Amino acid sequence: MPARSAPDPARRNERSRRAILAAALELLGETGYADLTVEAIAARAGVGKQTIYRWWAGKGAVILDALAEGAADAPELPDTGDVEADLRAVVRATVAELADPALSATTRALTIETLSDDALAEQVRDRLLRPHLDTVVVRLRAGQDAGQIRADVDPAQAVELLFGPLYHRWLLRTGPLTEGYADGVTDLALAALRP
Amino acid sequence: MPARSAPDPARRNERSRRAILAAALELLGETGYADLTVEAIAARAGVGKQTIYRWWAGKGAVILDALAEGAADAPELPDTGDVEADLRAVVRATVAELADPALSATTRALTIETLSDDALAEQVRDRLLRPHLDTVVVRLRAGQDAGQIRADVDPAQAVELLFGPLYHRWLLRTGPLTEGYADGVTDLALAALRP
Repeated sequence: MPARSAPDPARRNERSRRAILAAALELLGETGYADLTVEAIAARAGVGKQTIYRWWAGKGAVILDALAEGAADAPELPDTGDVEADLRAVVRATVAELADPALSATTRALTIETLSDDALAEQVRDRLLRPHLDTVVVRLRAGQDAGQIRADVDPAQAVELLFGPLYHRWLLRTGPLTEGYADGVTDLALAALRP
Repeated sequence: MPARSAPDPARRNERSRRAILAAALELLGETGYADLTVEAIAARAGVGKQTIYRWWAGKGAVILDALAEGAADAPELPDTGDVEADLRAVVRATVAELADPALSATTRALTIETLSDDALAEQVRDRLLRPHLDTVVVRLRAGQDAGQIRADVDPAQAVELLFGPLYHRWLLRTGPLTEGYADGVTDLALAALRP
């Protein structure tokens, strides 16, 4: 029978890292970004505050890492062969996320970080937003190949046409975020994107 | 010959108020919102910090008032009779503002406030953004009356279709903010809005 092995520091670090990221996401949903502190994350994760500061610059960096792990698992956008139906589905899902108080709090936190910290902004864009937007670009290109989307449209601009209005309304709170609203945006964008 | 009048407190207050608002705008352009303090505004305006706190809750409220005075002076959107040309002009002007470092800093500050403070968010929307967006709604309605814009389009959604993509790109820094980009957005939106 082998001797019981000594505790593995790498494994212990990984366990702490996961506990910190999970605690950060939980607290974000519960207290919102503004009232979130590194102290509270440390207490919830059962680690010392210094452990967090050894690995991250601050709460923004912790939350970015926590969310980036989720983004890496994001599925491809479905391709049913009907680009209009697929775009309608993703616009509805995005509006539903923006209308959800907990998810909206997360997006709010990220947006504040993006506006406040240039270095973090690049990471938010490249690690969280690009992967999501790129799935829509891929779907739009397939739609162009299938002759369902105008060939002369830049897919990156088409993505902004679909998602820009949603974030505009969410940010400025100028109207309700409902499924009917989502479909209205999709209809209007499709009128521009159809061949 | 009339006796020299005693100093008028109302006039003195108004002079202080204007000095504070001007100082806030100057410092916003110079140091950016994050590093702006009520102390610095007071020093630049030549008033005590307490004078500012007597009238405003904090720096966000001061800046909102400073900008709202400018917004009240905003001109109507020109109506040349050609709705496409008029929309192209306002989209170009908005992109130019977002590309300007000093104006962009102001928009950034306001957006952070909007995301951080619900009470201030309503004021930002109603006192700063609505007046601007409403001038475009008025122009779109005239375009509908003239048969240049689809009659079944909600002008409020059409405004989001024009401006949402611009703020999306500005916020996420996903591409350049050039006149060519502005025209591309206008072209795409017009493809959706034309009868």
